[in-house]
Amino acid sequence: MTLDQIAPYIRTVPNFPKPGILFRDLTPLLGNGAAFRATTAALSDRAGDYDLIAGIEARGFLFGAALAQLTGRGLIIVRKPGKLPHTTIGHDYALEYGHDRLELHADAVPAGARVLLIDDVLATGGTAEAAVTLLRKAGGTVHRALFVLELVGLHGAARLNAQGVEPVSLFRYPA
Amino acid sequence: MTLDQIAPYIRTVPNFPKPGILFRDLTPLLGNGAAFRATTAALSDRAGDYDLIAGIEARGFLFGAALAQLTGRGLIIVRKPGKLPHTTIGHDYALEYGHDRLELHADAVPAGARVLLIDDVLATGGTAEAAVTLLRKAGGTVHRALFVLELVGLHGAARLNAQGVEPVSLFRYPA
Repeated sequence: MTLDQIAPYIRTVPNFPKPGILFRDLTPLLGNGAAFRATTAALSDRAGDYDLIAGIEARGFLFGAALAQLTGRGLIIVRKPGKLPHTTIGHDYALEYGHDRLELHADAVPAGARVLLIDDVLATGGTAEAAVTLLRKAGGTVHRALFVLELVGLHGAARLNAQGVEPVSLFRYPA
Repeated sequence: MTLDQIAPYIRTVPNFPKPGILFRDLTPLLGNGAAFRATTAALSDRAGDYDLIAGIEARGFLFGAALAQLTGRGLIIVRKPGKLPHTTIGHDYALEYGHDRLELHADAVPAGARVLLIDDVLATGGTAEAAVTLLRKAGGTVHRALFVLELVGLHGAARLNAQGVEPVSLFRYPA
């Protein structure tokens, strides 16, 4: 399956999570085994060199776990606060309204490990930037971040580039 | 890798999420590519006949997505309230203290599809039972539920059996 053949499995839902927003829904893609596998393969083709994958809760878990299964790499999980049982490190970051926090097990990243970040969607890049900060704080290097789709016009790619991280997305939609 | 070789990657963390609880932490297993792949293969070996996989947010996404990648099946995601953008059906269920709710896209399950439920841990079975109810309400059949581990003594297996669902777990620990 090519990217053009995968694209119809991305559904546009108007007015979610708020009026005026077009939400790009990946559940039809996940629900089709061939489309999900082809998406994972396309992500892997663009992954470059890395030792471990880091997936961001919750939808980044889906593509991170699929990529880990395909490639045999281990998966680090980057979670919302209070979810990880062992010693964690955290990073607070600003949202459009309010703030949020991501956490990581302090021992999740072997020293110097090359970590490939993965999430479903690149929007403003705030969450991905926070994950990069956290993975580096834990001792890893991060040079590339993979996304199934990028919402263009929210400057997420520029924000990651400014951190020395190359964002790579399979699909691009206007925000 | 055998189950005996995977077991050391399950870490016991005392006093999480509350004092006196021994939490079985699967993050070391996820972080080791060979252990994660072997776990997914062991789940697949015990999966029986099915058309689609359903993974429960958030840790069920990890094993559900890995199994989908391994087997080429599609993945249905069962989510916490307010996360799914399209028309949903929901089911409220009681917790030890308070209640919770799971949601599913109303069109996620083709009529009569045989759905294999997957989550990381079987404890009281309340969440899994709610997911089964929801998947059946959406038009699917559910006969088996897979877990990486079962906390024995909380009667989760009996609860699922009473719903006509066979629970299958790779590992068992006292609750």
